[in-house]
Parts: sequence; structure tokens; C-alpha cells
Amino acid sequence: MASLPLPPGSTIGILGGGQLGRMLSQAASRLGFNVVILDPEEACPAARVSQHQLVAAYDDPDALSVLGRISQAVTFEFENVPAASVAALAEGGAEVAPGPKALAAAQDRVDEKTFLNSVGATTVDFAPVDSIEDLTAALERLGAPALLKTRREGYDGKGQVWVKSADEAAEAWAAIGERPAILEAKAAFTRELSVIAARGRDGQVAVYPLGENIHKGGVLKTTLAPADVDAKTEVRAKEIATAILNGLDYVGVLGVELFDLGNGVLLVNEIAPRVHNTGHWTQDGCVCDQFEQHIRAVAGWPLGPTEAHCRVEMTNLLGDEVEQWQTLAAEPDARLHLYGKAEARPGRKMAHVNRVKPLG
Amino acid sequence: MASLPLPPGSTIGILGGGQLGRMLSQAASRLGFNVVILDPEEACPAARVSQHQLVAAYDDPDALSVLGRISQAVTFEFENVPAASVAALAEGGAEVAPGPKALAAAQDRVDEKTFLNSVGATTVDFAPVDSIEDLTAALERLGAPALLKTRREGYDGKGQVWVKSADEAAEAWAAIGERPAILEAKAAFTRELSVIAARGRDGQVAVYPLGENIHKGGVLKTTLAPADVDAKTEVRAKEIATAILNGLDYVGVLGVELFDLGNGVLLVNEIAPRVHNTGHWTQDGCVCDQFEQHIRAVAGWPLGPTEAHCRVEMTNLLGDEVEQWQTLAAEPDARLHLYGKAEARPGRKMAHVNRVKPLG
Repeated sequence: MASLPLPPGSTIGILGGGQLGRMLSQAASRLGFNVVILDPEEACPAARVSQHQLVAAYDDPDALSVLGRISQAVTFEFENVPAASVAALAEGGAEVAPGPKALAAAQDRVDEKTFLNSVGATTVDFAPVDSIEDLTAALERLGAPALLKTRREGYDGKGQVWVKSADEAAEAWAAIGERPAILEAKAAFTRELSVIAARGRDGQVAVYPLGENIHKGGVLKTTLAPADVDAKTEVRAKEIATAILNGLDYVGVLGVELFDLGNGVLLVNEIAPRVHNTGHWTQDGCVCDQFEQHIRAVAGWPLGPTEAHCRVEMTNLLGDEVEQWQTLAAEPDARLHLYGKAEARPGRKMAHVNRVKPLG
Repeated sequence: MASLPLPPGSTIGILGGGQLGRMLSQAASRLGFNVVILDPEEACPAARVSQHQLVAAYDDPDALSVLGRISQAVTFEFENVPAASVAALAEGGAEVAPGPKALAAAQDRVDEKTFLNSVGATTVDFAPVDSIEDLTAALERLGAPALLKTRREGYDGKGQVWVKSADEAAEAWAAIGERPAILEAKAAFTRELSVIAARGRDGQVAVYPLGENIHKGGVLKTTLAPADVDAKTEVRAKEIATAILNGLDYVGVLGVELFDLGNGVLLVNEIAPRVHNTGHWTQDGCVCDQFEQHIRAVAGWPLGPTEAHCRVEMTNLLGDEVEQWQTLAAEPDARLHLYGKAEARPGRKMAHVNRVKPLG
């Protein structure tokens, strides 16, 4: 295995070459690392800012073995990495982070909530659903409306459906393809918050200020950070993030989506074992952003500071909203981050803009 | 020619693949541009963070023509670009910036000072020196000690020698290789300042706060910015930068090195028609750093804001000083920028660190 901390000049492999991989690569380069991207799409956004790309499927054992051999550390921009892929990478000799435990917990919504509750990170009530009978029973126990989601995969509102009454059970079960699922009780939350936190290879934990998130059509539209929260909420969010990171023996940056029930009561909606869209504000709000923080953790470096030096309003530019670049470029204190994607398909994350304001 | 402003997805060519080309490329990628580097050294620092590299000499007409054809705009990380190269690039169809006038002025120290004085940017007294007789006459007029420099090339203290008395004339003339030269009177300055400024394609000018520079062995060691200067000095520096930019019909970022004589009197030491080492502090001190600013100008975008949101102490890491990375990585509020150079030759610029402090 590689000896840690990795010195500058080492190679870091990244599985996935979208915008998260791209911004991870840029952060890694700033620290003097070389970056290799594995992604099936040639000239993907991350590959265009990296030293090398392996064009292959994420489960291609040969490509994974090569990536593991040429990289001293490997990480991911997405959580649905098969366990066999992680094993192939580790066999190549690379330090892989986050580890299998975190990936497994994040890949199955029932396992995720079970784990969360086991470390004291409360979630909504839920029930595993493997049949229409399970669903009917779960609806009776949790009440309607409730949210039916596939246990695995699905993001940005895909693979999930609201069940408004027991009458809709069959329709909902069909809508998600009759796949293993989870039914989640509805949370009476006032707003959605998130916290981005990191854990180093030595167990050091660093937590960024909270963000407040506004979604539109199931997709994140805006994050305001630092969020306007009371001390109780701030403390509770840090407790939750720390419990999750330690519980997973985690290495890297993790995103935690929270439901704010008021009065310092927070429920965890879901976790993402990677840099997170709700953490993009750190690029222009902190000395060490989430991307550099993740690379620091993965490379065995000490974690960087997480204080905000300004207030940031991060807005995603979806689909043809990216055509506003000219107006945004003329806006003072707006910092544009474009992903270099050729095709602006409807709803596709093309860029984000960080609007920088003074603190307080 | 390309139509301006260049939309994201356009390609920007950069001549030179060292650290300045690397940081320009990273800034261009953030704005959604693709970057092609021309540099004779394969896998040079900039190429490792760019989409493509042409491995060729800077005066290779074929490579320049290709670069001009695949790029909608082309710029440089260094000023010693032959006029013929610029012509070859322009023939390919690319917008080239900065233009030939700025390059010519920066390539010859006599032309440079003549131009500067013509736009009211005062310099030390000087005299062209083409022979030992010229040198003797110049020493008589300007007094000793005086600084003898080759008219062309030389940087970081190379190609120059102090002449301490008339007796040393012959030795000094031999030391610089008996090449066309300039003799410069000694300035009675208290400190060295610099100002980084930009001009857009529409003539808009943006000037960053001044930096105070400390050199060591002819090489920049530290820049403190914003420098502690009175309003008169600040205003005069902005006047000088604006006069130079307009006088050269300049497009892009320009660095102006100044001698501070006190009382708001500034002499221009030299200009660099490119992003400048004394402007690296802007990466962590400003919403829009000098690299993004340069790319904005070159691409015909509006210029970004130049206010500092914090105070920055930028320190170059030369040669094996880069081995301090582990200590620096653990220092809170220190932001590391490593250039990915394999060999830490003595005196070689390997990285810089920006130490971020509150304003005031």
C-alpha cells in the first residue's frame, strides 16, 4: 500500500468524470497531485482538466486494476460503486476512500436508515417494502401520505413516489417497478438544511457551517450558507455529522441532508458519501473548500479549516439556464463555475454560481 | 476571427506550460473553456490540467498554425514570444491577446522605458548602451552605482550586473556578453510595490490593490497585499497602470513593478504583459483572481471585481522549500498552490502559499 500522507507528485484516481470529479481533480492539482479519471464517456468534464483518463465502464475489472496500480489513492464522485470494484482497486495497491462500509450504507436506503438510527442520528419512521402486502401494512403503521422509494439507486427525486392514501398503494408499487423499496413517513419539517463534514485518516473531524437548501422539482436549486440557525441546531448538526463519520470509520467528505423540525430537532434525510452539491458554496466561502478537504482526507493530509469568511448563495444552473452566463459574468460578486458539458439537456446540472456577500 | 465574447465550450490556447499557464488553464476551465497548451516539454505543469498539449517549440510555425486554428483565443504565460509567432497564430484565426504592441514594448528594455515615459509613467534615468564607449558615457551622465542590463531577455535578476564605479565598466560589459544593453540609474526607493491591472476588449480597466514585494537574490520571495499605502500612492499607482494599459491598447492582465520613493512618488521598474507572480495573492484575496481576470479579458468577457476581501501574505517556495508541504498543510489559513513540477532544482519556483488574514 502507498505510504501516507501522500507527497505532492503522487497520483490520485477518481471514479466518475462529471462535475464533482472535475472539481475534485482541480483541487487535487492545486495540491500538486496528478489525477487519473475512470469514466466511460471520452473527454468527460473531469478528464479535460486531468492528466489522464481511462475510458471504461465503472465495473471493468481490467480498468479498475490499472487505476489501482497507477494511483496511490482512489476515490469516487458517486456512491453507487460496486463492492467488487472497490476490491479490484484495493488489489491494485491503492488506498481507497471512502471505504466499503460507507458505500454499503449509502447504497441501500433501509441499511442507511438502520445505520443512522444506530448511531443516534434520528430519521423519519420507515419500513422495508418487498411486496404490495408489505406496502399496505407499512401505510397502515406510518400513515399517509408517505414516500415510497426504491431501496437502491435513484437520486434527484428519481425512483420515488408519494403515496397519498392506502388506495394508491398498488399504483405506487407499480410506479417504482415493484422493486425492493422503503416506505418513509412524512416529516413535519420547516426547511431543509445540510451539513458537509470531513474525517481524516487519523480520525480528525471537521464540520462546515450549515447550509439551507431550496429544491425545485426534486433537484437542488439554491444553498444559502452559513444558514441562519440557532446555536442548538448548529451543535446538534455537528453531533449528528460526527456520529455518522465515526460510525462509518469514514475517510473523506460526507454530505448529510437534514430536515429541520425546529427547536434544535433535526432528522437525517439522507447521507452522501462524497462531496455534495450543497457544499459547493465552500469554494468561495472558505479557505479550504469541500473538494480540497476531500482530497486532503483521502491523501492522509491534515484537514483544512472550515470557517466561512463570507456568506454565499449557491445557485445551480440547470439545462439552458447556463445560457445566462453572459449576464452572470457581468454581475459583481458572482463567481461562475462551469462544468464544460457540451449538451445542455433539460434539467442537467451545467454550472453553478456562487454569489458572495459579507458575513452577518 | 472568433466572435466575442467567447461562449463557454470555446477553446483557449496558451503558449507556455509552466505554473502561470497551469493557473490560467485552471481559471479557464472554471469558466467552462477547453484549454490547449503549446510547450516543448511533454506533460509540463499546465498540460496536466488541460484538455490537450501540442509538444513543440514556441516558434514552430506548424504548431502555432494548428494552435491558432483550434483555439478561438490565444494568450501567453511569458512575454518573449516572437512577433512571427503571433502573426502565425493570428493567421490561424484566433484572437491573440495581449497584442503585438504590448509584446514589443516588453521585450526591449529601452523601448519599454521610452514607452513608459511617453505615457507619463516615470522611470529611472537610463541610456541605451551598444558599446563600451556608450557605457562609459552613460556612467558619466547617470553616475555610479548603476545597473547594466541586456536590452532583451533575462528575468529574475539574470542578464544584469551592478556597475559600482567607472573602473568596472569593461568588466560589466563583458559580464553581460557585450550585448545591446541599457544602463539604469539607481533609484532611491524605500520599498518595492507592484500593481496588477487588467483591460478588457472594450477598454474597461480594473486595478487590484497594491502589493508590497520582498525579493531575495533577485527573485520574488513574498508579496503582502493589500499593501499598507496612503491614498496618494494608491491613486498614483492606478493612474500609472491605466496610462500603460491604454497606451498599449492592451487586452489582459498586466503586472507593473514600482519603486516607492515616498510621498506618492512612484517610478516604474518594469512591466510584464501577463499574469504576474506578485498577483498570486488574488487567488485567495479576491472574488475574481488575476488568472480568471486575464481569461475574462482575453475571451471578451466583462472584467471581474478587484476588491480584496482579506489580507494575503504570498510566499514563493523555491527549490527544496517545497518539502515543507507537510508543515504548511497543517497551518490553518495557509492555502497551498503546488505546480506539479517533478524536479525541485535550486531556486526553481515549485509552489506558493497564501496566508490569509482578516483585512485591516
